[in-house]
Amino acid sequence: MEGKSIVSVDQFTPDDLSHIFSVAQEMRQAVNERGSIDLLKGKILANLFYEPSTRTSSSFMAAMQRLGGSVIPITEVKYSSVSKGETLVDTIRTLNSYSDCIALRHPQAGSAALAASISRKPVINAGDGIGEHPTQALLDLFTIVEELGLQSDSFDLRDMNVVLLGDLLYGRTVHSLSKLLSLYGVTVHLVSPKTLRLPQEICDVLTSRGCRLFVHENLEGPLSTCDVLYATRVQKERFDDEKMYESVKDSYVITPETMSRAKKNMVLMHPFPRVNEISFDVDSDPRAAYFRQMENGMYIRMALLAMVMGK
Amino acid sequence: MEGKSIVSVDQFTPDDLSHIFSVAQEMRQAVNERGSIDLLKGKILANLFYEPSTRTSSSFMAAMQRLGGSVIPITEVKYSSVSKGETLVDTIRTLNSYSDCIALRHPQAGSAALAASISRKPVINAGDGIGEHPTQALLDLFTIVEELGLQSDSFDLRDMNVVLLGDLLYGRTVHSLSKLLSLYGVTVHLVSPKTLRLPQEICDVLTSRGCRLFVHENLEGPLSTCDVLYATRVQKERFDDEKMYESVKDSYVITPETMSRAKKNMVLMHPFPRVNEISFDVDSDPRAAYFRQMENGMYIRMALLAMVMGK
Amino acid sequence: MEGKSIVSVDQFTPDDLSHIFSVAQEMRQAVNERGSIDLLKGKILANLFYEPSTRTSSSFMAAMQRLGGSVIPITEVKYSSVSKGETLVDTIRTLNSYSDCIALRHPQAGSAALAASISRKPVINAGDGIGEHPTQALLDLFTIVEELGLQSDSFDLRDMNVVLLGDLLYGRTVHSLSKLLSLYGVTVHLVSPKTLRLPQEICDVLTSRGCRLFVHENLEGPLSTCDVLYATRVQKERFDDEKMYESVKDSYVITPETMSRAKKNMVLMHPFPRVNEISFDVDSDPRAAYFRQMENGMYIRMALLAMVMGK
Repeated sequence: MEGKSIVSVDQFTPDDLSHIFSVAQEMRQAVNERGSIDLLKGKILANLFYEPSTRTSSSFMAAMQRLGGSVIPITEVKYSSVSKGETLVDTIRTLNSYSDCIALRHPQAGSAALAASISRKPVINAGDGIGEHPTQALLDLFTIVEELGLQSDSFDLRDMNVVLLGDLLYGRTVHSLSKLLSLYGVTVHLVSPKTLRLPQEICDVLTSRGCRLFVHENLEGPLSTCDVLYATRVQKERFDDEKMYESVKDSYVITPETMSRAKKNMVLMHPFPRVNEISFDVDSDPRAAYFRQMENGMYIRMALLAMVMGK
Repeated sequence: MEGKSIVSVDQFTPDDLSHIFSVAQEMRQAVNERGSIDLLKGKILANLFYEPSTRTSSSFMAAMQRLGGSVIPITEVKYSSVSKGETLVDTIRTLNSYSDCIALRHPQAGSAALAASISRKPVINAGDGIGEHPTQALLDLFTIVEELGLQSDSFDLRDMNVVLLGDLLYGRTVHSLSKLLSLYGVTVHLVSPKTLRLPQEICDVLTSRGCRLFVHENLEGPLSTCDVLYATRVQKERFDDEKMYESVKDSYVITPETMSRAKKNMVLMHPFPRVNEISFDVDSDPRAAYFRQMENGMYIRMALLAMVMGK
Repeated sequence: MEGKSIVSVDQFTPDDLSHIFSVAQEMRQAVNERGSIDLLKGKILANLFYEPSTRTSSSFMAAMQRLGGSVIPITEVKYSSVSKGETLVDTIRTLNSYSDCIALRHPQAGSAALAASISRKPVINAGDGIGEHPTQALLDLFTIVEELGLQSDSFDLRDMNVVLLGDLLYGRTVHSLSKLLSLYGVTVHLVSPKTLRLPQEICDVLTSRGCRLFVHENLEGPLSTCDVLYATRVQKERFDDEKMYESVKDSYVITPETMSRAKKNMVLMHPFPRVNEISFDVDSDPRAAYFRQMENGMYIRMALLAMVMGK
């Protein structure tokens, strides 16, 4: 992957994923033992965020610093050259002059592909609008593999039941993860309000690759048999009228009572931030994997940074 | 102190303070000789500032960098996940995934204690509303000890006259420093407008520990005998009507004329920023310690960071 | 230059410039071979930007990091102590407590000189209003020397024709570069709308030092013979009425057609950001030097940082 950009989950084969996960495991071990390593000493990551995202930008920053590298954070884009009318293309070329890699967050789908096409240095898509968020999908899948106790280099998810819960229409995270899951023939249960269903083209990707899909409007059906419950936010602002929002929102709140009806060794995940989709009482449940999921994000990003910068 | 959070000045004994000051002196020596040391190489500090504070955040950042560590600055909180409704608790847990320590500035009193109670990594209170600002109080006391030429490991302040001047009601800095001073039985002169007096509960702490308190409305009385004059801002917006503000503000301006009536070896301090409480003409007076006070802040924070991260 | 501030291009002799350019070349070589060096390990640069400027602040940050040093970025000045009424003088003194050098961007001309006069550490002017932008001028001249294939330690520009194009009245970049060019007796062609001509005092500097000046209202005359074409923005907001703007703006757009009439070995430069002064089609022309120009900025700033911090 040396010198390559990471734009979409579509670019990865199962072998690629196994390799990335193995490197991520090595990164975790190195961080646990030594805090950081000097693999990218002298390298600079430009963290170019056209939208605020504390979590993702902090994760990239920590990943680069734990690899011994430095970061140029560019987060106030609205005050910067961009607001003087500069194009994304010129900004990318400018950062090529200073840095060895660019992590790009941008509100418009397709921005990462555009940036990668003209950049002399690797670009890592850190989320582009309703487009992709590949590093999130990678950390999500890595978390599933880790939490289920599977071998990262030869895991089989064909017997797994994965529930995707919440806003499946606009949830970029869910779209990217679905595509990765499609590579493994999992059974996917889609639980969402009618108005927020997974887009048909993503359903088609899943079924064309041998996944079994089930559509639900509430969690009752798939809850007791699921191996992974991936909850996401249902954003109020997505609804046309508030009454409809009020009528569905409580169906999508995970409580200790919910967890009492789930399997003992299942995995509860959430891409965060949460508002009230998962009650705080659930945090101490050993199946609540969302804080480990977040930490895995740092190891995945360390692996990607190390790989694209050629180490 | 390894692994411990620093939430309040109340947690320190005189022995703790002597120890912190000794480490701070070593830090100053190391910086003067070598610029930086590698004590925290590979460690990451999350600088989580819910309120802007260039001075305090820069000081923490410089302290961490001079210890060989890295910093994740999170200062645009209003644009970040927090504005998406995330709780402080989730933000702290997120940063636990990436960093080894969190410096927290927050507008609400009690935030630092809450954060410390749920954090897996040490939290250092960098000011929480009208609550505490313990690192400021530590650097203030360290400066007093240093400027008076005392031994950091066995100093005695019982014969000292300390004047606290300005807004003593809302001044968080003054509250935290008062509590530290109370450990040493100093004589404290409180000089403030009637409406901005030191809160009774802090007066009670001071007297219950053997300090002698004197209340004044202007500086005339204690000026000629004080050993330490600690000036603070009188903020216009604290006053109900502007006339009252105008009537008192000039009583609290330190000029060369003021200094001419003070002892030759006294110490003039200010937590900064100043507006017009101390005239620029005073800066060249050797008793004006406020710039050295600021520099001491970096050494104190270096000491604390090194101690809580276990070195 | 150890310990010295860099405030204005007026402080440099041709010998100084040759020396800076030689060091910049060494910096480029070091970056190409190793990514970074440890020359300023343990040193801290405060990047104090009162105005946003992604390009300049990122360039300083990358330069410092590639020298092994750390950066304290202070870019949200409007939220900081400054907005609490603090003076530039106190802010500089504060940063003296924490850092080894200050890069200052400020909207008011003269700010850098003021800051340098009271700072205990070197101040580098990163642009002060309609005043100076010396590091930009240095990187511009360095680019001219490099692109024309001259020896950095003994170059002669007397036979060169340099075109300065665009808004020459308000363009700080052009003013600083003009002063540097005046040291070398070049022939300068000034191409601008009548209302945006180079200020007379700068014309006087050029002619008094033996430069030949020619004034044009369009590029036709000097295009075919120029060795360097330095294009700048014509900002709409500088014009009293929009009609006038519309009437001139297209005269100042460089296209492949423009380039077809220029010399084969000339150099096209622009300080960036560009809006539409240079068409994207020109980017692949080998004479288009503006991205290399930007990269040179990092090497020049590395050279300056290393020199003023005494290495």
